[in-house]
Amino acid sequence: MIRRFAIIGHMAPSSGKLNLNDLAGDSGRMDVLIRAVNAALFVSHGIRKDTDITLHLCGGPGPDRRIWFNGETLAGVRPDERSIGGQIKAILRRPVPPLGVFHEVTQGIFDTRGDLSNTLSEWEDEGVSIYVLDAQGKKFDTHHKESKIGFILSDHLAYNLEEVSLLESYEKISLGDKWLQGHSCITIVHHEIDSR
Amino acid sequence: MIRRFAIIGHMAPSSGKLNLNDLAGDSGRMDVLIRAVNAALFVSHGIRKDTDITLHLCGGPGPDRRIWFNGETLAGVRPDERSIGGQIKAILRRPVPPLGVFHEVTQGIFDTRGDLSNTLSEWEDEGVSIYVLDAQGKKFDTHHKESKIGFILSDHLAYNLEEVSLLESYEKISLGDKWLQGHSCITIVHHEIDSR
Repeated sequence: MIRRFAIIGHMAPSSGKLNLNDLAGDSGRMDVLIRAVNAALFVSHGIRKDTDITLHLCGGPGPDRRIWFNGETLAGVRPDERSIGGQIKAILRRPVPPLGVFHEVTQGIFDTRGDLSNTLSEWEDEGVSIYVLDAQGKKFDTHHKESKIGFILSDHLAYNLEEVSLLESYEKISLGDKWLQGHSCITIVHHEIDSR
Repeated sequence: MIRRFAIIGHMAPSSGKLNLNDLAGDSGRMDVLIRAVNAALFVSHGIRKDTDITLHLCGGPGPDRRIWFNGETLAGVRPDERSIGGQIKAILRRPVPPLGVFHEVTQGIFDTRGDLSNTLSEWEDEGVSIYVLDAQGKKFDTHHKESKIGFILSDHLAYNLEEVSLLESYEKISLGDKWLQGHSCITIVHHEIDSR
């Protein structure tokens, strides 16, 4: 089963400089997105080849950018925040590619223009079963048999009104009462699927 | 229920300089221990007051050191690796306190001498039910009713022979077939207990 994750970085910069020494401070909580990459793709001694994750950088300046980490081919990235952040930093210096072009920046890491609506329509076209992580949702049912399953989650902020509208038609799933960190949610989803 | 975690850093430095720019490289995989602190103590907008974690720094130079992060009182620490690493860096510059003295370095963060055997005997004295995370163990039973529950886990390396011997009499629990990152294991344990 292919597992896909998409996380929305409401304040994460889409272009410009990224300060690797203050990822949790003046970097639009890029640290939250970086930990999501770690949780999605890394096991103790390797990478989950069946998983990818798309970061949505919506904090400007300029157009939104999406960065896609593809576990199938990813190489040369270590699991720590600074290493993953360094890859993102290099990308933010470059212009945002046109919509529809997934530009491969380094092995297994791509960027393109676009936002959540684009990711949703791409996933629909590829036959991905889409679930939305939401504290108000139903308990995650681990008995699905989809060949491609995708999960949308937010960063440290709640979905905004536009996102709520875009996500309205998809099933909401909850992982419990506590508002967990995004990367913790990804870890739990992996565990639920691994345990089937 | 009080939740306690203890992670063994086989190569993590116990004294000296810590390079925050290369935590996954020349720092004895201190990044693994740091992510364990994040997973143990942080939820999206706060700290788990009922949880603490002890890092075992066994990589020298000099005596082993333990650093204890107590969620009940911890304050002023952000969840990103560099912030947590900065706290550890400041501690490593100081001499290791004598065994038995938990020296409070900053609010909710303590250090002392000692190793896994000391942690186990302290936990025994405090009536903690001790479980060992081990791929060979039984499925984690979520129906325990202990008032204090403690989990031992290793870093990116397997338990060494001395540790295997120390841990022999405790129940081994497994979270599945994959060798997950340490912090992912902590997240899953929290989720299992949260879901009871």
